[in-house]
Amino acid sequence: MTKIYGIGVGPGDPELITVKGLRILRSCGVVAYQSAVGHSSIARSIVADYLRPDQIEVAYHLPRALDVAEADYDSAVAPILPYLEQGKDIGVICEGDPLLYGSFMYVFTRLQDNYPIEVVPGVSSPVGAAAVLGLPLCYRQEVFKIVPATASLERLKQELSQLDACAIIKLSNNFAKVRSVLKDLNLLERALYIERATMPQQNIIPIELVDPTNVPYFSLILIPSQSKL
Amino acid sequence: MTKIYGIGVGPGDPELITVKGLRILRSCGVVAYQSAVGHSSIARSIVADYLRPDQIEVAYHLPRALDVAEADYDSAVAPILPYLEQGKDIGVICEGDPLLYGSFMYVFTRLQDNYPIEVVPGVSSPVGAAAVLGLPLCYRQEVFKIVPATASLERLKQELSQLDACAIIKLSNNFAKVRSVLKDLNLLERALYIERATMPQQNIIPIELVDPTNVPYFSLILIPSQSKL
Repeated sequence: MTKIYGIGVGPGDPELITVKGLRILRSCGVVAYQSAVGHSSIARSIVADYLRPDQIEVAYHLPRALDVAEADYDSAVAPILPYLEQGKDIGVICEGDPLLYGSFMYVFTRLQDNYPIEVVPGVSSPVGAAAVLGLPLCYRQEVFKIVPATASLERLKQELSQLDACAIIKLSNNFAKVRSVLKDLNLLERALYIERATMPQQNIIPIELVDPTNVPYFSLILIPSQSKL
Repeated sequence: MTKIYGIGVGPGDPELITVKGLRILRSCGVVAYQSAVGHSSIARSIVADYLRPDQIEVAYHLPRALDVAEADYDSAVAPILPYLEQGKDIGVICEGDPLLYGSFMYVFTRLQDNYPIEVVPGVSSPVGAAAVLGLPLCYRQEVFKIVPATASLERLKQELSQLDACAIIKLSNNFAKVRSVLKDLNLLERALYIERATMPQQNIIPIELVDPTNVPYFSLILIPSQSKL
């Protein structure tokens, strides 16, 4: 019977896919990935050198807007369905980890009742960025938070005002809002900004110098623990 | 010049090491790992089949108690030092990710001023467990927290009372305390318990049936998002 694999390909460096993820990726007859309409897929670009010429590739599109209806996600999965009916194994690749804010979650919840699904976890972008920056994130009984910059201003203030350590993800258009909150909370000097960690276009910029009109989706801010252990 | 690598070996399944981690692990003349005194190293057991007979192995010991002084960590790193002076590359392996509660952080902070260090990130146990359980963890603007069970009762109540989704780690002796907090906050029915996720001894137990006197360190509770997207 056909099987669906959700494969985390990691934060960007092709070598940060797991041994298991690579083995399964290469075994699948069909490789599927999310991409914005008219754009190439980041996940595909990460694994490009691993793909075989005889693998069928399928792109699907998830809406990016914040107020999408559930129906939009249902239709997004449609391009995958014909291959499932043909009985082929499908590897759905996803940046970072598939189940931690991953685009794969929308595929998973729509198909899990009808098909066997196996998830191969991946290296998430906060730990990928911490490795590049050489930042121990948190120790012992400290709480680590992953906070999307798309959260409301109130929520951001609330989560960041009680903090051991965190990663702030999905910056893009919300960078200015986040930097302003960090300034108000006296967190700016603890915060490190990185774009496209572990990718060839990786870029580390002092957070005061970041141009808020030019912040990519694949950027994040790390605020590491203040402990010295 | 000698170089230190901090290598995340993932949550337990040997195939969940990254391609990069495996390549570097096999290239190092010396492999070092943390182990409790008198116990074998979990990290070593994960990569056992990858080690070469000619690799030198070094165990070091970190104190586990909550009230340790910094001096204890300083002495813990001592077994590694002679090999650094010999100019050998050292791969320090670590379960999960090296910089997210990893034992490698104590090595990193003590040696980073004197030696070049490269960190290879790894798959952390919360996403490893989510993959096994088939649980989308969190969506969109939701906040994901990693909460150590060793935190104070007050802190646990505070962090868990405002929650989108979380992983509660380091359960061991603190399981009963955590379960009681979850019950008080009406979170018990959302919580899933798993021991040694992705390891051969993996065990999934309904949280009401867990024996609090028999909870291993490598166990965790996941509370996934309630969103249906």
